Amino acid sequence: MRTLQVDLGDRSYPIHIGSGILHDAKLFTPHIQGEVMIVTNETVAPLYLEPLKATLAGLRVNQVILPDGEAYKNLDTINEIFSQLLTCRHSRRTTLVALGGGVIGDMTGFAAACYQRGVDFIQVPTTLLSQVDSSVGGKTGVNHPAGKNMIGAFHQPNVVVIDTDTLKTLPERELSAGIAEVIKYGLIRDTAFLSWLDGNVEDLLKLDESAISYAIEKSCQCKAEIVGLDEKEAGIRAILNLGHTFGHAIESHCGYGNWLHGEAVGAGMIMAAAMSRRLGWLDQAQFDMVKSLILRAKLPGSGPAGMSVESYRLKMAVDKKNIDGLIRLVLLKGLGEADMVSDYPPTALDQTLIECTPSS
Amino acid sequence: MRTLQVDLGDRSYPIHIGSGILHDAKLFTPHIQGEVMIVTNETVAPLYLEPLKATLAGLRVNQVILPDGEAYKNLDTINEIFSQLLTCRHSRRTTLVALGGGVIGDMTGFAAACYQRGVDFIQVPTTLLSQVDSSVGGKTGVNHPAGKNMIGAFHQPNVVVIDTDTLKTLPERELSAGIAEVIKYGLIRDTAFLSWLDGNVEDLLKLDESAISYAIEKSCQCKAEIVGLDEKEAGIRAILNLGHTFGHAIESHCGYGNWLHGEAVGAGMIMAAAMSRRLGWLDQAQFDMVKSLILRAKLPGSGPAGMSVESYRLKMAVDKKNIDGLIRLVLLKGLGEADMVSDYPPTALDQTLIECTPSS
Repeated sequence: MRTLQVDLGDRSYPIHIGSGILHDAKLFTPHIQGEVMIVTNETVAPLYLEPLKATLAGLRVNQVILPDGEAYKNLDTINEIFSQLLTCRHSRRTTLVALGGGVIGDMTGFAAACYQRGVDFIQVPTTLLSQVDSSVGGKTGVNHPAGKNMIGAFHQPNVVVIDTDTLKTLPERELSAGIAEVIKYGLIRDTAFLSWLDGNVEDLLKLDESAISYAIEKSCQCKAEIVGLDEKEAGIRAILNLGHTFGHAIESHCGYGNWLHGEAVGAGMIMAAAMSRRLGWLDQAQFDMVKSLILRAKLPGSGPAGMSVESYRLKMAVDKKNIDGLIRLVLLKGLGEADMVSDYPPTALDQTLIECTPSS
Repeated sequence: MRTLQVDLGDRSYPIHIGSGILHDAKLFTPHIQGEVMIVTNETVAPLYLEPLKATLAGLRVNQVILPDGEAYKNLDTINEIFSQLLTCRHSRRTTLVALGGGVIGDMTGFAAACYQRGVDFIQVPTTLLSQVDSSVGGKTGVNHPAGKNMIGAFHQPNVVVIDTDTLKTLPERELSAGIAEVIKYGLIRDTAFLSWLDGNVEDLLKLDESAISYAIEKSCQCKAEIVGLDEKEAGIRAILNLGHTFGHAIESHCGYGNWLHGEAVGAGMIMAAAMSRRLGWLDQAQFDMVKSLILRAKLPGSGPAGMSVESYRLKMAVDKKNIDGLIRLVLLKGLGEADMVSDYPPTALDQTLIECTPSS
């Protein structure tokens, strides 16, 4: 088992990564004061709810099983969690346990942030995406019909338990979507890790235990370093959004859930790299390496066919990073060197969007 | 104008108190980055919305006017605030302004805590209760059908602007309800202020400008000191709940809104004092002074007629302060000396409840 400490002063917490650690009670019990509410969904519950309850045997454990999918990531579903907590008379000493992917983690964390003005919570992420992304950083929340992740809170977990065995039940498409975020960490900040990925991406797809654990640890470490520098996203943390402004536009245009988040981010990173090459910050060989790595991870190599520049611009205009109506983008000033950019020529964005969109 | 600084490190903020200061733009503008969303209700909007908009002239100002009343203090109403913010395309640099009483303040603060994971907000409390209570402490939130204030966040305002002229339009019952909380500060921590109240409570009822400003300042100061010692309510802050555990039981039993919160707290403080006398911590003369002061403020001198001990115990059992099913109470160890108590003889509670309940 590998253990990583996320250093955030009095909100610091450990991340444990290993095979079969869902069954290790001593990773959980130090962070529980007596009552536990497991929040999971209809897909994950049949696989891992009973094993987790067996691990927590002896504690007062209740559960709430939500419908699966981004479509249910809203205030109504959060209210179901509150109702179950109140029905089961959980006090402010309760601990919420998120058992599932990013949607479950985001909602459980937000419910924990707001229940009785804040209770403890534990993340047990069961998808690669949530293991390398949403388990670090304390971002929690839900969507609003008018915008994704527009409602939420910063709330840190007490511990994150990543059992790599849960990836064995993950659909291949979702595994690739998770690898997109792993590649992102190499691109924005760590050229050595990027080289390692170039040599080992196929091992990740095969779920090689040693490769997967290493990639998760490096990803969490990279994110933890950035979050440690900028917990409330005032500055450098924004580079974690490489590919995301493009990606959100794709998800929004196609309807959430049709493209997986990681797939949209994969295509978005190719767009960010293409624009960086257009602005002279990446050379052609570097761009080709980035695109090839993303394709080898079985991710899309371009945006959705026929999506217009106008559609992109409209969707990108509602991004939370924007100030005064300007579309700010995370681009690559070099490999391993991401930066937030807003003083680019508008035509460079338009040409990039056209270049990365197959005609329909 | 009096100004008080609430000292909470990097979340410190000023409270301005004075007659007519709603019209003083320079109290607001330093805390606004460009966009303003005023949140108010149907009762307050006709009185103070246009004056406030005139004060903020030149800024981008939008508004949302909610229905009036505790019945609307829920997640659905919060969602209306989010919808308006998104419809008007407010960024994370927006400032929410709460214009109204405690319900508006609690909901606006919670919306500010959660919109894009946290934006600025300004409190303009227009009732005495909200001026002396909810404008200090950062507690925000909404009710759930199964419990009051069960959902929320700690989120500090950037500034509080208390225009005492707004009390001229406040119904007399609500003025008395506010005085209940003012008396509370004397009882829990400040015997000199308690003596001053004993000599000046009628001036407060007459809205004497100097008396009202002084009482608001002393109350905010007292609460600010306690919150400064214990921002997240881990310990001493609980004494601010003197009378509230009894009071919440009354409000819940009678249906929220039938008894005003301050009225229930007034009766609850008499119960707390009666139990403190029964336990030998107050003498008869001290108890009589407390009860007389509360009655002189035109507040109820007892709980609702016919409410049973079982009803009280059932309602008190869901209080957030409780741990392991024990009903914890804030009682008076002496005048000006409140403490959280859980090792009392259960019969003392039952006898107090019977003593303070008129037969129906």
